[in-house]
Amino acid sequence: MPSHLERLRHLLGEVFDLRAASAVLEWDQQVNMPPGGAPNRAAQLSTIGRLAHETFISDEVGAELDAAQGEAASLDPDSDDARLVRKVRRDYTKARKVPAEFVGEFARVSALAQGAWTRARPADDFASFAPHLEQVFEMRRQYADFFAPYDHRYDAMLDDFEPGLKAAQVKAVFDELRPRQVALVRAIQERGRPVDDAFLHLDYDLQKQWDFGVEIARAYGYDFNRGRQDKSAHPFTTSFGLGDVRITTRFYPKLLTSSIFSTMHETGHALYDQGSKPSLDRTPLLGGTSLAIHESQSRMWENFVGRSRAFWSGFFPRLQALFPSQLNKVDVEAFYRAINKVQPSLIRVEADEATYNLHIMLRFDLELALAEKSLDVRHLPEQWNAKMKEYLGLTPPDDKDGVLQDVHWSTGYMGYFPTYALGNLIAAQLWERIQADLPALHQEIARGQFGSLLAWLREHIHQHGGKFEPVELLQRVVGGGLSAQPYLRYLESKFGEIYGLS
Amino acid sequence: MPSHLERLRHLLGEVFDLRAASAVLEWDQQVNMPPGGAPNRAAQLSTIGRLAHETFISDEVGAELDAAQGEAASLDPDSDDARLVRKVRRDYTKARKVPAEFVGEFARVSALAQGAWTRARPADDFASFAPHLEQVFEMRRQYADFFAPYDHRYDAMLDDFEPGLKAAQVKAVFDELRPRQVALVRAIQERGRPVDDAFLHLDYDLQKQWDFGVEIARAYGYDFNRGRQDKSAHPFTTSFGLGDVRITTRFYPKLLTSSIFSTMHETGHALYDQGSKPSLDRTPLLGGTSLAIHESQSRMWENFVGRSRAFWSGFFPRLQALFPSQLNKVDVEAFYRAINKVQPSLIRVEADEATYNLHIMLRFDLELALAEKSLDVRHLPEQWNAKMKEYLGLTPPDDKDGVLQDVHWSTGYMGYFPTYALGNLIAAQLWERIQADLPALHQEIARGQFGSLLAWLREHIHQHGGKFEPVELLQRVVGGGLSAQPYLRYLESKFGEIYGLS
Repeated sequence: MPSHLERLRHLLGEVFDLRAASAVLEWDQQVNMPPGGAPNRAAQLSTIGRLAHETFISDEVGAELDAAQGEAASLDPDSDDARLVRKVRRDYTKARKVPAEFVGEFARVSALAQGAWTRARPADDFASFAPHLEQVFEMRRQYADFFAPYDHRYDAMLDDFEPGLKAAQVKAVFDELRPRQVALVRAIQERGRPVDDAFLHLDYDLQKQWDFGVEIARAYGYDFNRGRQDKSAHPFTTSFGLGDVRITTRFYPKLLTSSIFSTMHETGHALYDQGSKPSLDRTPLLGGTSLAIHESQSRMWENFVGRSRAFWSGFFPRLQALFPSQLNKVDVEAFYRAINKVQPSLIRVEADEATYNLHIMLRFDLELALAEKSLDVRHLPEQWNAKMKEYLGLTPPDDKDGVLQDVHWSTGYMGYFPTYALGNLIAAQLWERIQADLPALHQEIARGQFGSLLAWLREHIHQHGGKFEPVELLQRVVGGGLSAQPYLRYLESKFGEIYGLS
Repeated sequence: MPSHLERLRHLLGEVFDLRAASAVLEWDQQVNMPPGGAPNRAAQLSTIGRLAHETFISDEVGAELDAAQGEAASLDPDSDDARLVRKVRRDYTKARKVPAEFVGEFARVSALAQGAWTRARPADDFASFAPHLEQVFEMRRQYADFFAPYDHRYDAMLDDFEPGLKAAQVKAVFDELRPRQVALVRAIQERGRPVDDAFLHLDYDLQKQWDFGVEIARAYGYDFNRGRQDKSAHPFTTSFGLGDVRITTRFYPKLLTSSIFSTMHETGHALYDQGSKPSLDRTPLLGGTSLAIHESQSRMWENFVGRSRAFWSGFFPRLQALFPSQLNKVDVEAFYRAINKVQPSLIRVEADEATYNLHIMLRFDLELALAEKSLDVRHLPEQWNAKMKEYLGLTPPDDKDGVLQDVHWSTGYMGYFPTYALGNLIAAQLWERIQADLPALHQEIARGQFGSLLAWLREHIHQHGGKFEPVELLQRVVGGGLSAQPYLRYLESKFGEIYGLS
């Protein structure tokens, strides 16, 4: 006779399978699908999304959850089962507020919107995308209203990606960050020693870029037996279970850094997803606990490791050997400075560490206004450009590299962007802790050895999957809550040195 | 207020979506999935397969079907709606006999078996695959027994792929074919003018093979906006709806013909799937009506078109231009003879037209014995080799190129192989009709024009999707039933001429 916990796990396993199947369909949509496949794919995602939701919010799950909660009461509160019940209770309570028909319809609408974005971006055609976007935003607002009352409608949107986070907290942290980040960027522009990165914009063979990225991903510890890399318009990581965690990258012939750092970034996500304890597979606890924690992993491997002097003292000779004509006259110090050049720019995913969060603040401001309905989609391009001018001093020449640059809104990910900035902050908090725990880390990185760093992350972060909520996990690991100070310290120290600001 | 027909279509649309999602997962499994993904994928396919089946056999579908049948009674019996109801009634009656748990379990077992086959074949390791195969066959027998009583257990297996076909009919047709095919092959070996095909086995660049295959697929009329080509261990065609019909091919550096003819073959399947009327999309009537009719399309484009003198009089100069060092000293007549060389060989998918059906008869004999349980899986390799000796005079040097060569059994496709041979016969029946209707066809093919052939197939076969059962479709198009005579006439005439048998 199976226990209620076992029966609950069985039902949740089916929900997991359906969501994993959706993830495969979405991955395929971005990586492989021919244009004609869009309408059928939207229908498939809608049906599966609705079925996953229906199965999850069924009375049967509710009854098993109630009973399993009784069984779990006597367990260690940090055991897998106790944590599973706790997380499922939270998710179930939320999900019961959303009708299955709504979930199916939202999957359909956002699949079509994503197809429209894929066509609109290269054509620089915001007008054709706008009606889709308006529909997505309207449904996202309806979604948030299922959770009324709230302090702010945006809170319900944030909660999907960062459980418990409020718009007011994000605003407070951003207000702490903004003046010092803006001051740093200004100081660099006014007083910094100029950095030359022209050699990063020569012709770089795409196949060699691919090979170098794969070499780094492997060195970091990404397991290609349980994953693969592909190309897509927007790099992303996706998981279909512990045995199949995939990354995508994009490649430009005249921007060497794009593929390298996006591969590092997605590898950081993938290492987190590949690192859950096997017992969490096919349960809601598999994978990361929140997007900000996830982003702390990707940004750590991309920036704290991948844009460090130590890393390139080991890997630069390898890169030179692949691209001798472009790099033979460049020394590692010049390369280090070039890949850390601070320059306000249009594209978030290519932004340097000092300006990155400003791209996020821009999106956060717009999303707040969209959530409140004080901004109309028709005016989004001009508002985007106005904020771009205000925060970064730039005006996009077109929408392609402006408001159309990110896939997120088309997929309904409103409330997602702030987690990118918070990920930077958390990465810095973790990094201070790691440096204290692993005194030889820099020497290891210089030798191309990442084993003890990965082991540390596996032990303290990865293995737990979604067992601990983000705030709780942070408390366990760094002994405190979210703070902007470590990241500001890191930025000011690193870029002060590079730009000779002292 | 929607009609019952509309409500039935809505429910069937969801079943369609689930099956299409399974097809995406299966395509990904063969084309992309890393090895570690197998267990999760098996669970996903199991859950979705079970849900699709449960949804289809639900009482709700039954009630709407009953009511829709009333509505359809007053319609033209050849209308989409009347045909939909008729087909769904047949499928529903069958499906209700199979428990949903069985369907889920079979999907899981066969997904794992397929993974085991993928590993076992290159390793020439039948022993590791045998337990999976035994499990698949046992479940396939259980499946057939849901339809007892039957004349032969194999009838229920055939019916999944070729509605209404019986083992006794297959046996009768094969008995008609066998003596004349065997006599033809013997005559060629004893009295035929020798054919040299050594130049087909030189080094052929894989990328150029790919490009040439794509050129042919495009010329045939395959719409890449609604499809794509990939590589896989076993070439196949799959459809996720009218807008996304994909083909795969395999490539060997020293066997030029493999990629060319498998691309033509899969393109033939894909043209059928891309050719349904748009109103059939997302219904059970989309796509081919049976596997034998499907195979008639693939074999027609591969052999009747693709291995004809007319085709190569147009395309051989293109091939020479791609591979000058290998082909400049070869004339088109020598090339035509080489690609039609008759030689008993080990691998079905590489077999020439004169020996191909013998490969099928071998499998049919084994499947009958497996269905009857008079043959044990442990003895399959030796029985395979014995039949190979009997029918083709050859002994496989290993299981890799013997009993392990096909993916079909691992996926549970027992009862499928005969449709390949029947496809050859039907292709010949259609071809006689087409030649009568399109007197300029050979000249058009020589000019690389396939438009009127495709238009003929669209009109008489493709557009109808699954509206007409195979026997009925054949009756409508050629005015008679299945016959071996046109294929035997075609073989004896073509190869008599090539080999100077007069």
